[in-house]
Amino acid sequence: MADAPTVTDQPASDAIRRHDPHSRGFASDNYAGAHPEVLTALALANGGHQSSYGADAYTAHLQEVFRRHFGPAAEVFPVFNGTGANVISLQAVTERWGGVICAETAHINTDECGAPERVGGLKLLTVPTPDGKLTPELIDRQAFGFTDEHRAQPQVVAITQSTELGTCYTPEELRAICDHAHDLGMAVHLDGARIANAAAFLDVPLARFTTEAGVDILSFGGTKNGLLFGECVVVLSPDRVRGLPYLRKETMQLASKMRFVSVQFEALLTGDLWLRGARHANAMAGRLEAALRTVDGVRVQRPVQANAVFAVLPREVTERLQKRYRFYVWDERTGEVRWMCAYDTTEDDIDGFAEAIAEELRAYAAQHDRSGVTGPA
Amino acid sequence: MADAPTVTDQPASDAIRRHDPHSRGFASDNYAGAHPEVLTALALANGGHQSSYGADAYTAHLQEVFRRHFGPAAEVFPVFNGTGANVISLQAVTERWGGVICAETAHINTDECGAPERVGGLKLLTVPTPDGKLTPELIDRQAFGFTDEHRAQPQVVAITQSTELGTCYTPEELRAICDHAHDLGMAVHLDGARIANAAAFLDVPLARFTTEAGVDILSFGGTKNGLLFGECVVVLSPDRVRGLPYLRKETMQLASKMRFVSVQFEALLTGDLWLRGARHANAMAGRLEAALRTVDGVRVQRPVQANAVFAVLPREVTERLQKRYRFYVWDERTGEVRWMCAYDTTEDDIDGFAEAIAEELRAYAAQHDRSGVTGPA
Amino acid sequence: MADAPTVTDQPASDAIRRHDPHSRGFASDNYAGAHPEVLTALALANGGHQSSYGADAYTAHLQEVFRRHFGPAAEVFPVFNGTGANVISLQAVTERWGGVICAETAHINTDECGAPERVGGLKLLTVPTPDGKLTPELIDRQAFGFTDEHRAQPQVVAITQSTELGTCYTPEELRAICDHAHDLGMAVHLDGARIANAAAFLDVPLARFTTEAGVDILSFGGTKNGLLFGECVVVLSPDRVRGLPYLRKETMQLASKMRFVSVQFEALLTGDLWLRGARHANAMAGRLEAALRTVDGVRVQRPVQANAVFAVLPREVTERLQKRYRFYVWDERTGEVRWMCAYDTTEDDIDGFAEAIAEELRAYAAQHDRSGVTGPA
Amino acid sequence: MADAPTVTDQPASDAIRRHDPHSRGFASDNYAGAHPEVLTALALANGGHQSSYGADAYTAHLQEVFRRHFGPAAEVFPVFNGTGANVISLQAVTERWGGVICAETAHINTDECGAPERVGGLKLLTVPTPDGKLTPELIDRQAFGFTDEHRAQPQVVAITQSTELGTCYTPEELRAICDHAHDLGMAVHLDGARIANAAAFLDVPLARFTTEAGVDILSFGGTKNGLLFGECVVVLSPDRVRGLPYLRKETMQLASKMRFVSVQFEALLTGDLWLRGARHANAMAGRLEAALRTVDGVRVQRPVQANAVFAVLPREVTERLQKRYRFYVWDERTGEVRWMCAYDTTEDDIDGFAEAIAEELRAYAAQHDRSGVTGPA
Repeated sequence: MADAPTVTDQPASDAIRRHDPHSRGFASDNYAGAHPEVLTALALANGGHQSSYGADAYTAHLQEVFRRHFGPAAEVFPVFNGTGANVISLQAVTERWGGVICAETAHINTDECGAPERVGGLKLLTVPTPDGKLTPELIDRQAFGFTDEHRAQPQVVAITQSTELGTCYTPEELRAICDHAHDLGMAVHLDGARIANAAAFLDVPLARFTTEAGVDILSFGGTKNGLLFGECVVVLSPDRVRGLPYLRKETMQLASKMRFVSVQFEALLTGDLWLRGARHANAMAGRLEAALRTVDGVRVQRPVQANAVFAVLPREVTERLQKRYRFYVWDERTGEVRWMCAYDTTEDDIDGFAEAIAEELRAYAAQHDRSGVTGPA
Repeated sequence: MADAPTVTDQPASDAIRRHDPHSRGFASDNYAGAHPEVLTALALANGGHQSSYGADAYTAHLQEVFRRHFGPAAEVFPVFNGTGANVISLQAVTERWGGVICAETAHINTDECGAPERVGGLKLLTVPTPDGKLTPELIDRQAFGFTDEHRAQPQVVAITQSTELGTCYTPEELRAICDHAHDLGMAVHLDGARIANAAAFLDVPLARFTTEAGVDILSFGGTKNGLLFGECVVVLSPDRVRGLPYLRKETMQLASKMRFVSVQFEALLTGDLWLRGARHANAMAGRLEAALRTVDGVRVQRPVQANAVFAVLPREVTERLQKRYRFYVWDERTGEVRWMCAYDTTEDDIDGFAEAIAEELRAYAAQHDRSGVTGPA
Repeated sequence: MADAPTVTDQPASDAIRRHDPHSRGFASDNYAGAHPEVLTALALANGGHQSSYGADAYTAHLQEVFRRHFGPAAEVFPVFNGTGANVISLQAVTERWGGVICAETAHINTDECGAPERVGGLKLLTVPTPDGKLTPELIDRQAFGFTDEHRAQPQVVAITQSTELGTCYTPEELRAICDHAHDLGMAVHLDGARIANAAAFLDVPLARFTTEAGVDILSFGGTKNGLLFGECVVVLSPDRVRGLPYLRKETMQLASKMRFVSVQFEALLTGDLWLRGARHANAMAGRLEAALRTVDGVRVQRPVQANAVFAVLPREVTERLQKRYRFYVWDERTGEVRWMCAYDTTEDDIDGFAEAIAEELRAYAAQHDRSGVTGPA
Repeated sequence: MADAPTVTDQPASDAIRRHDPHSRGFASDNYAGAHPEVLTALALANGGHQSSYGADAYTAHLQEVFRRHFGPAAEVFPVFNGTGANVISLQAVTERWGGVICAETAHINTDECGAPERVGGLKLLTVPTPDGKLTPELIDRQAFGFTDEHRAQPQVVAITQSTELGTCYTPEELRAICDHAHDLGMAVHLDGARIANAAAFLDVPLARFTTEAGVDILSFGGTKNGLLFGECVVVLSPDRVRGLPYLRKETMQLASKMRFVSVQFEALLTGDLWLRGARHANAMAGRLEAALRTVDGVRVQRPVQANAVFAVLPREVTERLQKRYRFYVWDERTGEVRWMCAYDTTEDDIDGFAEAIAEELRAYAAQHDRSGVTGPA
C-alpha cells in the first residue's frame, strides 16, 4: 500500500477561499479549522473503494487506537457530532423511562435544543453547581424516587470533562462520582467534548480519569480539538450498554464513508497530536489569565484549568472589545464573558488581546474618571 | 484572500494508508472516496477562525450556489447525512400527527432503522410499486382519511429521484405527482441522494424536475456523488416549511465547523463536477448493461437509467462472483443482485467485471451441462 | 365490609338522559353501553378512601382474578384504553430500535393515528394477509435483517384475536406463530380487544390460546365487552417484559382512582359475564349471517366466527340502509360493509335488520329491474 | 327520553366490596371515590347505542356546559387523566422544538415520569419558586434565547391553579403572566387539576382567572373533584392551538365510550356540584389549619388557600401518625408533610386528626422531656 498522495494529487477546485486564514478570535474552539495533518490523513484514506458504514480498514484499526488509550475493553463508535455522541450514549445506558442527572450548566441541558428530550425521550434531572462539577452530594439532590413510577428513573449521571465552565474533575473526584452512581445502580457518562484539555491539565493518561475511575461510556471530542468534524462514542463498560449500532443509525449519526471520520481520529490519537493541541490551548488560556492579573477593571471569575477564561468586565468595554475580537457574553445578567483558546491560538494572539482589553479598560476608566471597576456597570 | 494552500501546507500525518486506492467494486456508490477537488476545497476553507454552526463565509455563499440551480426562493441547510436530510425535511412539512406517503421500497422505509418513526414520530404510509416510482393513482391508495383522527394524517408525499431501483421520474411525472399532492393539501419531498444521476439521465437542469415541477423540499445528496460526507436540505417552498434551523439542531445534524460541509458543495456545484461524476457513473452502468446483453444466463431486470444495474443470475454464480468483486444481493428470495457504478468506476472496471460475469456463467453452465439459465437455481 | 350500596345511595344528578336507551345499531361494539352489573360494581367500589394508582384492594384482588384465567405467572396492569394497552405492551417487549411485525389490517397499523410510531417510536413491519391472520410464513416476509443496523429490529410479532376481520386463530395456529417467533428471538403480543369473542367461538378457556400457546403479553379488552372503559395489559412471560409500571405512567395510562377500572374487570371476569356477553354477540352475528343466506343481492364475504359480519351489497342499498341503521363501510373501493354485534344486540334487532336489508335489496332490484346483484354497482 | 334508571335496574354483580367505605385519610384527594350523583349520571348515560369517540349526545352537550363557564369560544375535549390533558395541551400550543417554562414544583416536572419529554418531546425550562407560583420576573429567568437554534424555544408558560403547594394565583397575577407571555409570543397553559379549589378560594367564576385573564388552554380536573376518572382539555384561544383531535388520539387519550366521561362532567358542572365539593374540601383544610394553630410542635408552612395543608413536625411524630392515618411526607430533607382534604372529608375527620396530631406531639414532648419542637429532629 504505497502510493501515498503527493502534491500533484491535489487538483484545482471550483471553490475559492472566502476567508482570512490568519484571523482568529476567542469565541469558541470550534471556530478554529483543522490540523493540517488531519487533511493529510483524509487524503491518505481517499481513493479506491472501502466498505461503507464502518466496515472499512480505518474504522477497524481505530478500535486498537482507542484501546491503547482506554484499555482492552473499550469499543469505539465514530459519529458526526457531540450532540449525537451524547444522546446516543445516554440512550445506550438507559431504558425508555430513564432520567439523566446532570449539572444545570451541562451542554446537554443548555445547548442542544432539547435533543436529549426529543430524540432520546430522556428527562434531565438537573442540579445547580458552583463550578459546573457534580459531586456525590449534588447527585443525591436528584438521586431519589427509585422504583417510583411517577418519576423518570435516574439511570445515568452525566458529567462533562473539562466542564462547560473550564474546570476539571480530578481522577479522585470522578472515582467518587462513579462509585456513588454505581452504588445507586446508575451508569456514568462523560461528555468529553474537551476531554483532551482535561488530560492536558491533569497531566495523566486518558484512562486515569475515565476507564480507571469507573466511567461507563463517553463522548470523545474531536471537532473542538482540531478535526474537521467527528466525535466518538467510547464504550468502557460493555455490560452496561445496549444497542449502540442501532442507536447510532436510527438517530442519524452513522456516516456512510466512515473511513473519513476514523482516519482523522487515527491522525489525532496515534501520536500526541491530540495532546499537543490541547496543551497549547490550555497554555494560551493560562497566558491570558496571567496577563490580566495586572490589568485593572477585569476580574477572572473561575479557575482557569482548561482552555477557557471567564471574566467580568464593564459592559461598555465588552461591547467595544467585541468590535475588535469575536467572543461571547456568557451571562447577560452578570456581564460575564467567555474567552476560549484553541489549538491554533498564538502567543501573539493572546498578547494582542490582553493589550486590547487593557486599552479598552483604560479608555473606559478615563471616560468614567475612575479606575478599578471590577463588575458590570 | 490570497494564500491558497500550497504543497508545503500538507505535513505528514501519524495516520497511514490502510487500503488499496486502486481497488473498486460494485457494492455501492458510497464505497467510493471523494473527488480530489473536494479535498482541495477543504484545504481552501481551512485555517483561521470562522463562525461556527453555519455563520461562516462558505455557508453564506452556498445560498447563492443553490439558488443558481434551484431558483431564487431556494434556501439551503447543510447537514451530515441522507437520513438526517430526509427526516428533517419530512418533519419540516408535517405536524406531529403527520403521515408520509412513500413507496414500499423507499430508503426511508427500508434502510433507516426506523429513524422517521423514532426521531420524527412519523408514520410511513407505504405503497407497493412496480419500479420504485409513485404515481397519482398509487398515492391515492394511501391518500385518504383526511380529518379522521384515527389515521395519521397524510401530509407529505415522499419520492426518490433517482429511485432506489435505478429508475428516474420524468419532469412531467413529477409535475403530476406534485399537482396531485398539492390538490390534496400535501407537500412533496424529494429524496435526492442520487439527484445528480437523475439530472444526468434526464439531461435537464436540476430545477426542471424539482422547483419547476412543484417539489417543496428536497434532500440533496453529496456523499454518493463524490463528497467525503454531507447532504443538504433544500427548501423550495418556504411557505410550506417550518422550523428548519431548530429541527436540524435538535435532530443532531448541525455541524459546528459547517464551512467544511459547505465548501465541498461549493466545489461540487459551482462548475459541473456534480454532473460529470453523475454522467460518468450512469455511463458506466449503461456500459455494463450493454456488455451483458450478449451474455447468456444473466437477465437485467429493470431499466438502467441512473447508475444501478439490477440483474438476476444463478445463486452459485453470485457467490463465486462475490469472491472477486464486492456487491450486494438485493432480494434473497429472487436472487436479484444490484451493481452500482460510481463517479470513479472506470471502463476497465466494467469490462473486467462483465468478463468475470461471463466467465462464471460459462463455468456454471459447463458444470451444470446446460446453458441459458436465466433465473436463480 | 357490609354496607353494600342500596337504592337510596343513588341521589339525583344534574345530568339528564339525552339518548334513547333502546336504540341500537351495527356500527361497533363500542357503541354499546355497559353491563348494568358493571355499574353495580362501580357503586360497590365507591365510598371511603382507597390508595390511588393501583395500591387499592380491588387492583390487588384483580391479580388473582386474572391468574385464574391465565395461570399463576400472569401479572395484570389495568389501563384506560386499547391503544394504550397495545402501545405499552409493544414497548415492554422491545428496545428503542424495535420493529413490530403485524398484519396490514392490524388496528395498531390502521386505527391508532400513528401512536405506536409516535409514542412508542416503533416501526411497524406490515404484511398483507388474506383474512387478517398472520402465519409463520407471512411473518417471514418481515422477519429478516436481524443484526443489520439499517433495519428496525424485528422484536415482536403482534397479532389480534379475534382479528379486525372477525376471524379467529385456533390455539394450534397461535402455538405455531409463538414457536416461530420465539425461535427467531421475537416476543408475541396479542391484541385482545375482542379476546372474549374468540374464546366464545373457540369454546376453550382463555389460557388455551394465550398462555399455553406461548403468547408473552396481551391487551385484554374490556370496553368492547360491556365495560364503561378499561383494558388490561396482561404479562404472561415476565422474563421477556420490562418496565411495565414506568411505561404505563409515562405513556399516560395510569388511572389514579384505579379501583374503578379494576372492579369492572372483577365484575366481568369473576363469573361468566365476560363469556355470556361474547357468546351472545357472536350468536347474533351468526343469526344475521344465517338470515342473509337466503337474501338475494348480498354476499357475506368472510367467515363469521366472532361478532362481525362483513358483506358486499350495492352502494345504493348501503346508503339507504345507513339512513335506518348505523354501520360503517369497511372498504370504499369494494363497497364492503361491516356489521358488528354487541353483548346487548337482541334477536329482534337482528331479525329487523335482516328484514330491512332484504327490503332495500328488493326495492333496489325492482328499481333496476333485475335481481341477484352480488357486488357494488 | 323518559326511562331514567330505577332501583331495579341495578342487578347484583360478581364483584364484592373489598374496602371500608367509611375510612378516610389525608394522603390525596384522589384517594376519595366519586360523588354518588356521578354514579347516577353514569346510569343515565347507559343503555342503548351511542356513537363512539365523542360523537355522542353527552359530549355534544358538554360543549355548552363548558361554554357557560368559559365563554363562547371555549372548546372542550374530554380525556382520561391529568397527565394526558397536560401533555396534549402543551403539544397543541408548541412546535416540535418547543420548550415549556414552568415552576420546578410543577406536576408536569415532578410527577409524570417524564411524559412531557417522552411523549411530547418537550423540554421543560424550570424555575425555582418560593410558593409554586410563577411571576413575569420568574418567567424571564427562562424566557430567553428566542430564535437561537441551540435552545428549545420557549413557546408556552405552564402554570398550576391551585398550585401543587396549595396556593392560588389571583386573577390579576394570572393576567400579568398571560400578558407577559403573550408579549413574548408564548401561549399560557393552566393545569387545573384542582381548578375548582382555586375558584372556591378566590370566590369568582371560573372564567375570571382563565378566559378573562388570557389563559389559552387548560386542563380541567375532574378526578380530584369527585369523578371516577376524567379530565378535559379546554381550548380558550382556538387561534393558538392546533391538532387537538389528532393529538388526543395519537397520545392514547381518546375514550371510545366517551359518553361516560362527558356525562360525569355534565353532572359536575351543570349545577354547583363542582363548587360545593371544592368549597367543602377547602373549608376542611382551613379547619385543620385553625385547629393546629394552638398545637405546640407543629408548624404550618405555607398559606392554606386551597385544600392542602403543609406542615413540619418531628419525624418520629410523623411516623407514628402515619400508622393511624394515610398521608405523605412531601420533603424528606425537611420533614415537611402534606395533608390533603377532599370533597368527602368530614368535620369529624378533621377534628379527630387534629387531636391525633396533638396527642402524638404531646407524647413526643413527654418522651423527649421538652416541648415546642418545631422542626424535624
